[in-house]
Amino acid sequence: MLATIQIHDDSISLLDQRRLPLETVYIPIKTAQQAYDGIKDMVVRGAPAIGVTAAFGFAFGARDGDAHNESRMADMRAMLLSARPTAVNLRWGLEKQWRLYKQHREGAGAQTVFRALFDHAVSLYHQDIATNKRMGDWGQTLLPKGARIITHCNAGALATCGWGTALGVIRSAYAQGKVACVFADETRPYLQGARLTAWELQQDNIPVRVIVDGSAAHMIQTQGIQAAIVGADRIAANGDVANKIGTFGLAIACRFHGIPFYVAAPLSTFDLNLDCGADIPIEQRAADEVRFAMGARIFTDSIAADNPSFDVTPAGLVSAIICEKGIVAPVNRQTVAAMCGD
Amino acid sequence: MLATIQIHDDSISLLDQRRLPLETVYIPIKTAQQAYDGIKDMVVRGAPAIGVTAAFGFAFGARDGDAHNESRMADMRAMLLSARPTAVNLRWGLEKQWRLYKQHREGAGAQTVFRALFDHAVSLYHQDIATNKRMGDWGQTLLPKGARIITHCNAGALATCGWGTALGVIRSAYAQGKVACVFADETRPYLQGARLTAWELQQDNIPVRVIVDGSAAHMIQTQGIQAAIVGADRIAANGDVANKIGTFGLAIACRFHGIPFYVAAPLSTFDLNLDCGADIPIEQRAADEVRFAMGARIFTDSIAADNPSFDVTPAGLVSAIICEKGIVAPVNRQTVAAMCGD
Repeated sequence: MLATIQIHDDSISLLDQRRLPLETVYIPIKTAQQAYDGIKDMVVRGAPAIGVTAAFGFAFGARDGDAHNESRMADMRAMLLSARPTAVNLRWGLEKQWRLYKQHREGAGAQTVFRALFDHAVSLYHQDIATNKRMGDWGQTLLPKGARIITHCNAGALATCGWGTALGVIRSAYAQGKVACVFADETRPYLQGARLTAWELQQDNIPVRVIVDGSAAHMIQTQGIQAAIVGADRIAANGDVANKIGTFGLAIACRFHGIPFYVAAPLSTFDLNLDCGADIPIEQRAADEVRFAMGARIFTDSIAADNPSFDVTPAGLVSAIICEKGIVAPVNRQTVAAMCGD
Repeated sequence: MLATIQIHDDSISLLDQRRLPLETVYIPIKTAQQAYDGIKDMVVRGAPAIGVTAAFGFAFGARDGDAHNESRMADMRAMLLSARPTAVNLRWGLEKQWRLYKQHREGAGAQTVFRALFDHAVSLYHQDIATNKRMGDWGQTLLPKGARIITHCNAGALATCGWGTALGVIRSAYAQGKVACVFADETRPYLQGARLTAWELQQDNIPVRVIVDGSAAHMIQTQGIQAAIVGADRIAANGDVANKIGTFGLAIACRFHGIPFYVAAPLSTFDLNLDCGADIPIEQRAADEVRFAMGARIFTDSIAADNPSFDVTPAGLVSAIICEKGIVAPVNRQTVAAMCGD
């Protein structure tokens, strides 16, 4: 499995996920601006991966001469935070760094501050992989032997620092010999399912078939699919889940067919400041992502298109949320609070 | 509006719908084999349009010297029928022609038989447009003023000989000043919504916005959409509806959100020989339609893909079926039989 984020002595490289699976290219990241661009332009995507990338970006900003200027560091943090609005992990990674920065700021040189922040980002990176493996251990208990599973978008090693959230659960189940087949929604407009999930499961020899998003209800009905499992970008206090556009429709189809719909997400994805899903900001991306596919034009600019990048699945449609501390089920305000408590 | 089928003195031309909306090209059709290829390769698509195209193809076959050989005419009819399996209108058009052929066969020259069959195909063509306008008159009564409507695939002028089924209802409602906005699912893998529905509505100045299929549930929730309306490829005796892949998921989303889900289809789309939707043959098309979009490759041949071209929406999710004789609601075995009876 190729690393999403390669860590060097004092910089990182990001696997350019816009070009997968047809090309494998890494882009060097040495400044906060480059980290911002990499997140905004979707070189790197996936809530946990962009949280850690932002943490590295903040460290680079300290090295770039701003370490002694708290106001400029705050601006830089705000810039990184603005790269994408929906995934709360971005804020989580930056808040972790900000707290460390405030501790080290007094009297330390820029290089010292950078090193502390960079090393901290490295620890967040390793922590993310360990978190995913714990989620995998919990989550695989929910899947039957011979499991036929549907997933949406990419919540895999490529969306995290390694192992994956939803695909981490599938990996752990596969290691137990439980997985018969994974059906991967292609996930228009950005095709993360067709490009990333299928590729990454194939690398690990996990049986996978790509389907168009519209066929999910038919495939559940006709292919003996027993469960859906997806990742999340933000989970509100009541258990409503923001995730890649198309997730909500898949959850409704699962309910119609009477199969469980699971969400795998680390505690860093929960945002207890938000009462419910209606409060989660939904990123609206460029209409051209709908007008084109893989660079090929589908229809003219004179026709309007809407491109909300996420949707919100109400807690009532979520059978369970798998996190590193265990399984939240049923999903409601009380069970979410209990899992997030100390 | 460009004609789907251009009728000449003794041949037709088909608008190549594979190349719309970026190119406008007509392909001449003069033989049964060319009609078969045009249907199979999706130069022409849409249940009513392929029914009429097959009727023309059968006429061409009679001219090609086989008119006196009933066995060869039966083979040719079987070939045309095999071009695509799901839309029952193909059989309908060929049965209409077969009955006429059996009447004219005795003692008539090939040219006489051809002319009778060709003229009959022309009458089926005009009958289809009249049928669609009647459906429009009935269907528009179901839509509110300021209607915000979602549709899937293309059930428009391009899917018929003119006016359209689902889009015919929208056209009729628009003529009444009722339509505020149409949301067109792009309809992967073949993108009939993005390429054809958006283009054809734009030609008529009907406000349209393209969305990815996965966003339908989110758009219904957030955009004030009041109804869905789609076409059909075959309707079983119990009211189950086969239509383009993705229709079933849209119908489930409509039920979840409590908005009506309408089907507009002529009586030629009903197949009372089939007890229920499970009996409808579902065409499985090439995996490459999923691997590519507009000719651009998304993922490698080494990854499997499933491409069912249709799905079946159970009658219980269909609020009403609009046909040329009126509106079937509620949709069940009794109401379908009553509408199809004389």
